[in-house]
Amino acid sequence: MGDLLGVAVLGAGHMGADHIRRLDRVVSGARVAAVADPDASRAKEAAAGIEGATVHTEAAAALDATGVEAVLIASPGPAHEEALLEAFARGLPVLCEKPMAPDSAGALRVLEAEAGLGRRLAQIGFMRRYDAEYRRLKALLDEGRLGRPLMLHCVHRNVSSPPDFTSAMLIDSSVSHEIDAARWLLGQELTSVTVLRPRPSSGAPPGLLDPQFVVFETAQGALVDVEVFVNCGFGYQVRCEAVCEAGSARVGDDHGMLVTTRGAAGADVPQDYLVRFADAYDREVQAWVDATRRGRVTGPTAWDGYAASVVAEAGVRALEVGARVPVELAPRPGLYAGGGR
Amino acid sequence: MGDLLGVAVLGAGHMGADHIRRLDRVVSGARVAAVADPDASRAKEAAAGIEGATVHTEAAAALDATGVEAVLIASPGPAHEEALLEAFARGLPVLCEKPMAPDSAGALRVLEAEAGLGRRLAQIGFMRRYDAEYRRLKALLDEGRLGRPLMLHCVHRNVSSPPDFTSAMLIDSSVSHEIDAARWLLGQELTSVTVLRPRPSSGAPPGLLDPQFVVFETAQGALVDVEVFVNCGFGYQVRCEAVCEAGSARVGDDHGMLVTTRGAAGADVPQDYLVRFADAYDREVQAWVDATRRGRVTGPTAWDGYAASVVAEAGVRALEVGARVPVELAPRPGLYAGGGR
Amino acid sequence: MGDLLGVAVLGAGHMGADHIRRLDRVVSGARVAAVADPDASRAKEAAAGIEGATVHTEAAAALDATGVEAVLIASPGPAHEEALLEAFARGLPVLCEKPMAPDSAGALRVLEAEAGLGRRLAQIGFMRRYDAEYRRLKALLDEGRLGRPLMLHCVHRNVSSPPDFTSAMLIDSSVSHEIDAARWLLGQELTSVTVLRPRPSSGAPPGLLDPQFVVFETAQGALVDVEVFVNCGFGYQVRCEAVCEAGSARVGDDHGMLVTTRGAAGADVPQDYLVRFADAYDREVQAWVDATRRGRVTGPTAWDGYAASVVAEAGVRALEVGARVPVELAPRPGLYAGGGR
Amino acid sequence: MGDLLGVAVLGAGHMGADHIRRLDRVVSGARVAAVADPDASRAKEAAAGIEGATVHTEAAAALDATGVEAVLIASPGPAHEEALLEAFARGLPVLCEKPMAPDSAGALRVLEAEAGLGRRLAQIGFMRRYDAEYRRLKALLDEGRLGRPLMLHCVHRNVSSPPDFTSAMLIDSSVSHEIDAARWLLGQELTSVTVLRPRPSSGAPPGLLDPQFVVFETAQGALVDVEVFVNCGFGYQVRCEAVCEAGSARVGDDHGMLVTTRGAAGADVPQDYLVRFADAYDREVQAWVDATRRGRVTGPTAWDGYAASVVAEAGVRALEVGARVPVELAPRPGLYAGGGR
Repeated sequence: MGDLLGVAVLGAGHMGADHIRRLDRVVSGARVAAVADPDASRAKEAAAGIEGATVHTEAAAALDATGVEAVLIASPGPAHEEALLEAFARGLPVLCEKPMAPDSAGALRVLEAEAGLGRRLAQIGFMRRYDAEYRRLKALLDEGRLGRPLMLHCVHRNVSSPPDFTSAMLIDSSVSHEIDAARWLLGQELTSVTVLRPRPSSGAPPGLLDPQFVVFETAQGALVDVEVFVNCGFGYQVRCEAVCEAGSARVGDDHGMLVTTRGAAGADVPQDYLVRFADAYDREVQAWVDATRRGRVTGPTAWDGYAASVVAEAGVRALEVGARVPVELAPRPGLYAGGGR
Repeated sequence: MGDLLGVAVLGAGHMGADHIRRLDRVVSGARVAAVADPDASRAKEAAAGIEGATVHTEAAAALDATGVEAVLIASPGPAHEEALLEAFARGLPVLCEKPMAPDSAGALRVLEAEAGLGRRLAQIGFMRRYDAEYRRLKALLDEGRLGRPLMLHCVHRNVSSPPDFTSAMLIDSSVSHEIDAARWLLGQELTSVTVLRPRPSSGAPPGLLDPQFVVFETAQGALVDVEVFVNCGFGYQVRCEAVCEAGSARVGDDHGMLVTTRGAAGADVPQDYLVRFADAYDREVQAWVDATRRGRVTGPTAWDGYAASVVAEAGVRALEVGARVPVELAPRPGLYAGGGR
Repeated sequence: MGDLLGVAVLGAGHMGADHIRRLDRVVSGARVAAVADPDASRAKEAAAGIEGATVHTEAAAALDATGVEAVLIASPGPAHEEALLEAFARGLPVLCEKPMAPDSAGALRVLEAEAGLGRRLAQIGFMRRYDAEYRRLKALLDEGRLGRPLMLHCVHRNVSSPPDFTSAMLIDSSVSHEIDAARWLLGQELTSVTVLRPRPSSGAPPGLLDPQFVVFETAQGALVDVEVFVNCGFGYQVRCEAVCEAGSARVGDDHGMLVTTRGAAGADVPQDYLVRFADAYDREVQAWVDATRRGRVTGPTAWDGYAASVVAEAGVRALEVGARVPVELAPRPGLYAGGGR
Repeated sequence: MGDLLGVAVLGAGHMGADHIRRLDRVVSGARVAAVADPDASRAKEAAAGIEGATVHTEAAAALDATGVEAVLIASPGPAHEEALLEAFARGLPVLCEKPMAPDSAGALRVLEAEAGLGRRLAQIGFMRRYDAEYRRLKALLDEGRLGRPLMLHCVHRNVSSPPDFTSAMLIDSSVSHEIDAARWLLGQELTSVTVLRPRPSSGAPPGLLDPQFVVFETAQGALVDVEVFVNCGFGYQVRCEAVCEAGSARVGDDHGMLVTTRGAAGADVPQDYLVRFADAYDREVQAWVDATRRGRVTGPTAWDGYAASVVAEAGVRALEVGARVPVELAPRPGLYAGGGR
């Protein structure tokens, strides 16, 4: 199994369990080598059925477990700093869920610890940088044909906030995504922030200042505004429009990236089926591998292959004779009963 | 490595090489155990750097190679029948690229061979069934709230056709995707076909009947029409509108699935970030695993984590004081130079 | 009143009454001079309150009424031929609602009568030629940058059909719009027609073949397909996609005309507010004229003008001082109470 | 002519000339009775060919001209106050282009003058209230199903600014439209304003602060933000999203109003062709009246009516016989040559 990257996952809650599933079943080239959670039964449950995964209640023990080559930190925020420092001490590469630390003092300590090592070990979990639409927007901005970005208009809406969500968390938990996305998209630090407080929605819990409207200025004079509304009731919506000197581009609507330039608003059209259906190919082969490993066969059958062949032949004849051609199938073997699909 | 499914890939051309990459680096739970191609150097190149993958010029040899537990057939169509029968003879599960066989007689022989085994081994590569939008359309039709489907309007456009593409191939190569998609979406066999031939586009090679307009009837009286236009010049477009008794739904436009029901046309809005950003999480962790296995660290840095933390704290203060708050960052360590991003 | 065109309207039913309202209150430069309907009370009601409009039960009497300079025929189809011939006999220009005559023999007689006059008097009411989106599509096709049109894909859906609607009427009443639109858009005659009959929707009245799928060929080898579905239940939808050698253009969706050319799909962006808001200006002035003629004043008030002025001044100060500036309004006079709007 | 409202138009510049054309040829029920402009030749040119329109260099003289019953003020802003007061003195109803007066002191004097009359005479030219999409948005907000409005996100972009446009004019000329629209949509006064100044676009003239980002607070605690960008280079775009407690609605994109409520984003689908094609009917009849008054006949011909009839009959036969039916037209008379359209 030497070939697969052995990962210790710290934290087996909602996010941790999802990452364990991902490492085990979705991502190629990795395996879950250890799981740690103060709640032993939760750790055990998350690791269940994963060959070679050890279970721990202490993060440090997981880091020291056999076969651990890297760490994924998905424990609660207050545990991040210590976990990062432990990983640094062992020279282990880390993927750390956001926030890196609960406050900037802790974040600075982590930063200085890594800088002291003289090499990078940590990747922080700002996953929006990996979203297909955000990546296209970033590429478009970097390419430069829209000119310098002047403003980002952002929207961040949740159906409802979790219990105990505070007014400050709209910023340090929700807007933190836009903070990173803006820094990344613009390639600039943010230099000031103003928070405007419309009268709260009656859909928000009493006392919660929701929505808020946050305005950032950047080092090169751009403006970033963010509507954050965590009890909007109608959906999860993340939207970003970059307004540039020669055009604007918007992601996060119900279509793909919409680019407006001189006299035209539109979206790209793919030029190739491998682009358009790349995900479908990935899903197809993954589904086949998954089923096969479980000793099952799913998906389109030989009957489907046969039927397609008969219909296509009839089509070619119809093309030749210029008339309607009936399709005649052999009897369907019992093995393929109940489908047609 | 016993845990990973050992796959023999037959054919190392364009499609085969892509599947080899997919099994090696994208899909979880599988490994390339053998590659076969009559062109030995092509097979060798496709397998380069994959630990444990043997290389062969004969399909049968690949099927017999050590560790082979399943077969992916990506060789040219005329080789499929023999490869399928070889796999059946060995009891190996198969994923076979379309077409299952070059003609319906061959397809019938494959079908009968598998039926004779009394159990399924083959999955046919109709990947459109794995496309996210098509799956949503299928789910919507099966759910029944739009009523019985009456018509499918399909469009299948390519920028340009490969050399030596014939008028018949518009049907048995291109439209074959719609043939399977229609059978699957409707859960019905197609019973007749008519091909209409508009005057060819001047953008098509001389002699090629392109575009064509193909009309199918189904066992339960639905109609399926397909515009196939393989030299449209402007893009790769695959579109399907299902017109039902109580609404219509369209996939393949520049937005997601558009559903029209009584008095309203619209798209779903996701209710959860795990839905909206599922792919981003997958890509994030895959990118981290890939980099870590190569001994590299990429992605958001501790500086990014620190900066986000400082900005968020300033934001919380701005919320409290009701005024503009400047953001003050510590000096950036040299380790993180050249970014801001 | 000599300046206004005196129009006799024949037929005071649903469509006739709407045209009478249009001539009287919407269109500039015309007046209703006479109204004819076999049902005298219906004619009287439709003409009520229109100064100078005489009322008749015989079409011929209306044509001969004082001040009649032109005729608008909105009577039932069977009455059209005679009315057209009467108008021709008097040398009166005519706008005749479709169909020009209930059958092609009658249509030919009308055609020959006008041709015998040696000059045109009749305009036929194919109003789709006056729809903004269709006009843009026609202009785009004529301009030629998409190349020769190869196919038109049309959709014509109604919520439900009127009582006594027959299977034939799906074609000669509903599809007749697409027949004219296709001839006009393509500038070609249609040379053949095929009608395909999917199994009827359970939402259609028993016995009605609804939907139908109609395919036309044209003189220059283009193809026109029309889905006509008059009991679709979900809305009134008219859609047309022109597929050309170098791009496609679609009208009738929930956005404006969508044009797809090499690598991009998009819509025009207007360059000027007079284009974007042309209709708003027309409606504004019409609303003002209408209210003023009735001795009323509606619309934005002087208070609105004043408030806008105060806010704008505060805005300019805010721009100058770089800070939040409060807006201070004088007390609102009682005359403007109850608004703010 | 007594029936038509006699209007004096003050100002014969760009906007004045457009209103003169509108009153003369688009709007029903009005006529241009007098035109005034300090530049006599400009006034004469604008009134050319309009029967009964007198020409003046003094506004007062135009107000006193025979047949003047109402006034449309389209002169430059500094002339508005005097013109309004003159109209009030004569008891004439007025439609006054925005701004009502160049500053709030003048606006207050106008307001008090009208309030002193005890009755309304003035309508201010905030035409956005007459735009179809804004009206739908207003109706939706008033209806209440989206709940209380919390924020309006507005965008106002022009391709380029006129010469001599100042930084203040972005607010008191451009944003003044959003000021009125916000007050009208929300039914609330605006109570404060803040202007943020991103670094200007290099596409803006030197010294012009463009774009700007303007934030208003309202009497009931809503927030209104406006991006104003008058040298965006790419188009004229006016957009407004109302974010409410139970959904959001956006107008001004390339489609109609987009409403997002629980789990769905979408647009209305019209239920009736009179709704969908109302404008087409208006344009059709107006075109017919215009041509007829000039002694011309345009639009669809009797040949079009005949051809449609023949094709429809062939279609009905095709429906009956279930096969392709050719269309056979009589020879086309010379009167209809050169068309097919």
